[in-house]
Amino acid sequence: MQRDVATGSLPQPVTACGATTDNQQLAGDLFQTFREMSFDGVGISRETYGAGETAAMKIVEDLAQRHGFATVWDAASNLIVRLPGRDPNIAVVATGSHLDSVPQGGNFDGAAGVIAGLMALVAASERGQPLRTMELYVLRGEESAWYGGPCYFGSRALFGGLTDSDFAAAHRSSGRTLADHMVDCGVNLALLRSRQPLVDRSRYACWMELHIEQGPVLIAREKPVGIVTGIRGNVRHRRVVCKGEAAHSGAVPRWLRHDAVLAMAELLGRLDEHWRVLLEWGEDLVMTAGIVETNRSEHAVSRVPGEVCFALEYRSQDVKTLKSFGALVQSECAQVAKKRGVEFDLGASAVTDPARMSEDVTGLLKAAAQSLDVAFEVLASGAGHDSAVFANAGIPSSMVFVRNDKGSHNPHEAMELADFKCGADVLSTALWQAANRTEGFRS
Amino acid sequence: MQRDVATGSLPQPVTACGATTDNQQLAGDLFQTFREMSFDGVGISRETYGAGETAAMKIVEDLAQRHGFATVWDAASNLIVRLPGRDPNIAVVATGSHLDSVPQGGNFDGAAGVIAGLMALVAASERGQPLRTMELYVLRGEESAWYGGPCYFGSRALFGGLTDSDFAAAHRSSGRTLADHMVDCGVNLALLRSRQPLVDRSRYACWMELHIEQGPVLIAREKPVGIVTGIRGNVRHRRVVCKGEAAHSGAVPRWLRHDAVLAMAELLGRLDEHWRVLLEWGEDLVMTAGIVETNRSEHAVSRVPGEVCFALEYRSQDVKTLKSFGALVQSECAQVAKKRGVEFDLGASAVTDPARMSEDVTGLLKAAAQSLDVAFEVLASGAGHDSAVFANAGIPSSMVFVRNDKGSHNPHEAMELADFKCGADVLSTALWQAANRTEGFRS
Repeated sequence: MQRDVATGSLPQPVTACGATTDNQQLAGDLFQTFREMSFDGVGISRETYGAGETAAMKIVEDLAQRHGFATVWDAASNLIVRLPGRDPNIAVVATGSHLDSVPQGGNFDGAAGVIAGLMALVAASERGQPLRTMELYVLRGEESAWYGGPCYFGSRALFGGLTDSDFAAAHRSSGRTLADHMVDCGVNLALLRSRQPLVDRSRYACWMELHIEQGPVLIAREKPVGIVTGIRGNVRHRRVVCKGEAAHSGAVPRWLRHDAVLAMAELLGRLDEHWRVLLEWGEDLVMTAGIVETNRSEHAVSRVPGEVCFALEYRSQDVKTLKSFGALVQSECAQVAKKRGVEFDLGASAVTDPARMSEDVTGLLKAAAQSLDVAFEVLASGAGHDSAVFANAGIPSSMVFVRNDKGSHNPHEAMELADFKCGADVLSTALWQAANRTEGFRS
Repeated sequence: MQRDVATGSLPQPVTACGATTDNQQLAGDLFQTFREMSFDGVGISRETYGAGETAAMKIVEDLAQRHGFATVWDAASNLIVRLPGRDPNIAVVATGSHLDSVPQGGNFDGAAGVIAGLMALVAASERGQPLRTMELYVLRGEESAWYGGPCYFGSRALFGGLTDSDFAAAHRSSGRTLADHMVDCGVNLALLRSRQPLVDRSRYACWMELHIEQGPVLIAREKPVGIVTGIRGNVRHRRVVCKGEAAHSGAVPRWLRHDAVLAMAELLGRLDEHWRVLLEWGEDLVMTAGIVETNRSEHAVSRVPGEVCFALEYRSQDVKTLKSFGALVQSECAQVAKKRGVEFDLGASAVTDPARMSEDVTGLLKAAAQSLDVAFEVLASGAGHDSAVFANAGIPSSMVFVRNDKGSHNPHEAMELADFKCGADVLSTALWQAANRTEGFRS
């Protein structure tokens, strides 16, 4: 792929579409344009409700218009690209993803889904007019990195889901609120604050999103594409405290100790073993203790540790699994506490609900992959996505993952364009099937 | 115990001795004097080779002289109080302890053994002249807190054991070297540096030391006195590093994780279980991971931890147990590393050899306790003591512990004087037996 980097000229509209080499070039050129305009010296930075995000969205708008598509900006300043169907009175088929990135992030997280969606609309328009209207959503504000936690602002705004605490969230460097930055981007803040949905969810027949995989499963399984069965929710205990009793490490025998670290080790060992068994039982679960620290003001090599703090997070596609594992955490804490004479304080927990993908929509994606002879893995999404917002709004949804080395949220994201083509073709084929199906979709 | 605090007057010599009420008063008054002269606002501070230590030693010297004992300061500026025996040509019976304290320490750690020794010499002198000469050693510099680790300076100097690194050790606040502070206290530095022993170890028949227990065993067992079978040595790994692989906590499934914290938890769990079994097997062992920390520059609630550091210390009276447990630590590290795809780096280790108490001398102490109807527990010393230096110099040694609540090295040390009397009586009786025994002692 050769292009004049110095001029930064836009990719030219392709003349022949479908899942063709030219369509591939459209994608490659757009990725290249995004990379050049958003490079921050280390990686890619496009701030949530920021100028870089807007600029990238305008490039998509310009390209879409040059392909003859109608475009519209909604009250949350999301961009919608539309290919009208033959029947304007039936529910539309929607796809999309986001164009913001984390600071010093990679070029594919979010952008891949937008570009694949645009390719699918171009391909559809070349095939003829579909039965249902097809829409591409270029969403804003998916990342949690810029406003200290809350995220999915663009998609949540669609369904009237933003709260006062979202609007008040402070930007990590400017310190200004999300509301301020939204106003800069032309958002109708009063409407968003009213919590009135911007769209009626019944106008959507289904939603599909392509995204790079943020884990290593497709690399390990040697498959270019993943089809997603659900998006894991999570329970986070940011600070679990285990309190025992500090003591002389030489003078206090085992039977008189209340060692906080060994108690934590036993608790984590027990939970790890439950996790192993639950996976064999067929449950979807991951568990992480990402932070562990003894108390620096009192710990020492020669002191039985009297206190240790640790983070505990577990994720599952299944609400019931999250609840049951939570009960297991509590009962194991109680047992270890009783056995070892320590106390566990789980502290506050933050809960994000999982989202189930529609078997109906997932089935379309699988059928598309099979018809294209694209090898795929069925898997859960461990990270959150805008698709969870659509699914939890009651819209039958699913996702396509594209194999990607080195994770996401870093400059080293490594998706091969050949794999992207496989995923984009699956998305394009499934969207076309959906857009021409008369019957509705099941959640 | 009433005395005129304002005058700070010295305890008066008692007129009637033995394990009597007056002898008790001598002890109570001395503890009170030490407390008043060494109170730092929080606890007791008598620096290693410092002015407070010297002042307390001079009080002991003055009192000993007023009781008619000869006193002498050796080249290391230790104070020796002597009660000559009938036969000056046979090995002497020695007792003693130290008079320095940790910063903001308690009033009993060290001082109890000095006072009990003085009481024993007073009691012996009242009983008549013993066969063997009896000596009380008022030692300096037992604590490790003032010079950043090295300790037992006074006792090690006796046997020519101080090294260049000891002399060069910097004081925690003045920054001056131990050598400088020693010179201030009148030490013959050239002699100590020559590593020539100040005494011939063969001149000692045996050594006994009374000390407060620094652990909770006697409190838990409801016994006033402990008789010590050995002083635990230890192996310390200050910084063990477990390296796994950092990863997204939602997107990476169990089978692709290399979680450093769960690996550490499994290792500690395995070692904890070995420890439990080894105790049932009759081994002497304690194990502690007193410091645990994930890497602050990269850890997060939502990140599989790629690294964790922890301290590992284990102690035993038995060199073989230390060696075998060390081998077990290495093999368990290797197994967990292989199973979980992580690496353990144990880093450098510091080894302190254990010291075995003489069964012969311990037997004398047990017999004394039985004859006095004092309930006692047989136990190991987890903390180090000057007695380890005497024992490892080849002198048959043992220790008496006195029940003490709230540990040591803090202002809350809580030894009851009634318990001290039990311990001091056991020491006094055993020393008298030893001083009148014609046959030698077995190590």
